[in-house]
Amino acid sequence: MPKGVPETVPDDGLTTRKRRRLPVLAVHTGAGKGKSTAAFGMAMRAWNAGLDVAVFQFVKSAKWKVGEENSMLALGGLNRDTGAGGPVQWHKMGQGWSWIQRGDDAVEDHAESARAGWAEITRRLAAQEHDFYVLDEFTYPLHWGWIDTDEVVETLRNRPGTQHVVITGRYAPQALIEAADLVTEMTKIKHPMDAGRKGQKGIEW
Amino acid sequence: MPKGVPETVPDDGLTTRKRRRLPVLAVHTGAGKGKSTAAFGMAMRAWNAGLDVAVFQFVKSAKWKVGEENSMLALGGLNRDTGAGGPVQWHKMGQGWSWIQRGDDAVEDHAESARAGWAEITRRLAAQEHDFYVLDEFTYPLHWGWIDTDEVVETLRNRPGTQHVVITGRYAPQALIEAADLVTEMTKIKHPMDAGRKGQKGIEW
Repeated sequence: MPKGVPETVPDDGLTTRKRRRLPVLAVHTGAGKGKSTAAFGMAMRAWNAGLDVAVFQFVKSAKWKVGEENSMLALGGLNRDTGAGGPVQWHKMGQGWSWIQRGDDAVEDHAESARAGWAEITRRLAAQEHDFYVLDEFTYPLHWGWIDTDEVVETLRNRPGTQHVVITGRYAPQALIEAADLVTEMTKIKHPMDAGRKGQKGIEW
Repeated sequence: MPKGVPETVPDDGLTTRKRRRLPVLAVHTGAGKGKSTAAFGMAMRAWNAGLDVAVFQFVKSAKWKVGEENSMLALGGLNRDTGAGGPVQWHKMGQGWSWIQRGDDAVEDHAESARAGWAEITRRLAAQEHDFYVLDEFTYPLHWGWIDTDEVVETLRNRPGTQHVVITGRYAPQALIEAADLVTEMTKIKHPMDAGRKGQKGIEW
């Protein structure tokens, strides 16, 4: 299908070239499949464009989405070894973020871990450490009130440079949707589990 | 989020293990973004599982989705060089499929090209040449009547082995949806082009 042509040209004083470099905030929400998968597909595309990609998974299990993680890290390794594409980092909350030193007495507190993840992302956004961020399943700590949505929206709206951010998960808060440039809802029409089927290797993970 | 547990267990005489190996037919449809991107994200996951991946793009322009193509081919190259993941092929209709010899007098007929693509896929499915097929934008030749939907559904329903197939594009025919195991509709809630913005490198392509 042909590339879309904007229906209106904004009166923002920007040239098309400058408008092409605007940072994008995308949200993938809804109860259907493909929210994270499409975000990782975008990350793959960003890699090819030579962008610096960082994924932050706000999930409990370290095993989750290991297929995408391995593939993206393989692309990151290719960048390191041959210079193709861009660098890739993959961080997951799991039992605690990789950058946090853990003592034996570490308390497993998901709300606290989620806040620590967001604090680190805030720091990286301010420092413009990456070009393309995936905040996977990040809507949940917002939805559950673990992280303040207004503060997140404020930080994202004011992020410097041309850093792209993709946020996935159900129940995206309205304020986040309003702040986003691109919002897609994935709706389940039919799922194998409805017929009692379990996940397939290579398909579900 | 925890992995889902089936609500019902089917009375099909299969063990969970066997049910895990059932081939999946997935359809990504709707007017929103992410249909193809999620399919390529699934392909990336399939690559990591060591599956043999083949993408067939039913599009006119050879430039389309070059970001995903390059990244997937980079993963395919990694498989060739190091044995990681699975092999990757990427075919596009463009001015004619790669496997078709073209004379100088070649007529550019998109309907004919689309039919030639489907004929080749039919052959490969029968021969079980791949494990994971992406038929990108394949709903359009069905929707436009270039390829007979009933024949496609019949072929897909009867495909041998455990070959997974993901089909993307708007206007998925009802018969295809009925035949599919997993159907997701992507709905546009908000898009940058609504605000007159053009595509961003690393984001849109």
